[in-house]
Amino acid sequence: MQAPTACLIIIGNEILSGRTQDKNIAWLAKELNECGVRLMEVRVIPDIEETIIHTVNACRPNFTYIFTTGGIGPTHDDITSAAIAKAFGVALERNKDAEEILTRHYGADKLNAARLKMADIPEGAELILNPVSAAPGFRIQNTYVMAGVPAIMQAMFGYIRHTLRGGAKMLSRTISVYITEGTIAAALTAIQDDFPQVEIGSYPFVRDGRLGTSLVARSTDPDKLDSAYNRIKTLLQSLTSEVIEGDLA
Amino acid sequence: MQAPTACLIIIGNEILSGRTQDKNIAWLAKELNECGVRLMEVRVIPDIEETIIHTVNACRPNFTYIFTTGGIGPTHDDITSAAIAKAFGVALERNKDAEEILTRHYGADKLNAARLKMADIPEGAELILNPVSAAPGFRIQNTYVMAGVPAIMQAMFGYIRHTLRGGAKMLSRTISVYITEGTIAAALTAIQDDFPQVEIGSYPFVRDGRLGTSLVARSTDPDKLDSAYNRIKTLLQSLTSEVIEGDLA
Repeated sequence: MQAPTACLIIIGNEILSGRTQDKNIAWLAKELNECGVRLMEVRVIPDIEETIIHTVNACRPNFTYIFTTGGIGPTHDDITSAAIAKAFGVALERNKDAEEILTRHYGADKLNAARLKMADIPEGAELILNPVSAAPGFRIQNTYVMAGVPAIMQAMFGYIRHTLRGGAKMLSRTISVYITEGTIAAALTAIQDDFPQVEIGSYPFVRDGRLGTSLVARSTDPDKLDSAYNRIKTLLQSLTSEVIEGDLA
Repeated sequence: MQAPTACLIIIGNEILSGRTQDKNIAWLAKELNECGVRLMEVRVIPDIEETIIHTVNACRPNFTYIFTTGGIGPTHDDITSAAIAKAFGVALERNKDAEEILTRHYGADKLNAARLKMADIPEGAELILNPVSAAPGFRIQNTYVMAGVPAIMQAMFGYIRHTLRGGAKMLSRTISVYITEGTIAAALTAIQDDFPQVEIGSYPFVRDGRLGTSLVARSTDPDKLDSAYNRIKTLLQSLTSEVIEGDLA
């Protein structure tokens, strides 16, 4: 069986302007992998309604799961919920459960119109709760709408992760040498050809002024992974006495 | 005049697996902004030929500039150059200038077949040189193909940046307070409505356990930017004595 796939859509001018260094891609990639779901694509798009609608609708038929981050707060630039409702052709409506959560969190006196906007959720969506900021995300069909702030996004993912149906987990082993890629490329191609079920990645690095290469073998099959890894290790040991099991990049 | 736009396509399983923390988005975003070019979209895609071809061809009509990073090294998983040639419907051919550069760098004795692969460039493309690793990237039409290793990507961008035709530079001012977004959202919407040529972004943060908001005003018009910024500053000063000019997020 093909593993379930995911696409992450990061909605946020602050990433595209370079103001904010993204921390969500790598975190979500690793978590999804633990769930047996493959992150196959990421898109970073601006806070523009038609772009959000177009991107969500272009992506959602192509992946098992769509995750969005960003744009669900109380300010004028938080337009994700309304755009998602339009993308799915449903109304954006005041969600009673969300309103109750926000009332409890802020108290009725501080729950102004801007904060109440965070209770406007597409019709038919299920809430994604989070203990950090209270304001919920939501799921509609295969699309999970989460906050952009990493701590809140992570709490939301924690709330829904047990509901994801994963396939075989991708296993990974890494080995590193202070040898440049070009020296080992041909031998590595031969190993890759012998192990079509193992994905072998080659990543150059510079460490303390020395050039090197980390080789990452990935597979859902632990035996094939070990066999490919051992072939790589034997190759590297034939070239240098300095073989480091693990990642140096 | 509309500012020239850009799309960054990051080609690399190592980003999608979470192994490698991306550092190229924020760096390139800031550099492009300095050039008066707006980064409007980022896509991260795997090392799969048909995905590369499809993504490049889907994106290149929609932006002034396309930048790709990753997959131009000597190993079996470096398939970007061949995929780009197919995307543009041209041959991948041994480039004499690239071969000469690689020969000079490695010496004829160490220039094996794998390294020579880095001289295979789509027909009609112009080389993008770099002093870090010697192996060139290339430009074909509006598409700039660069290395994924940040230091090498940055050197390549340095080589081509003077050739980009930029528009008005996006200017930015940031101000921060220890007040949560919901408290200022309504007043902020009114300011945004008064300054349609200024893009106002609101970004919550937690610092030393205190919640706050950074407000970023961006515009190509310095006078309108200052006016909007001063309105925001006056608003914040009416709410707290602790107004920090700059970013805290």
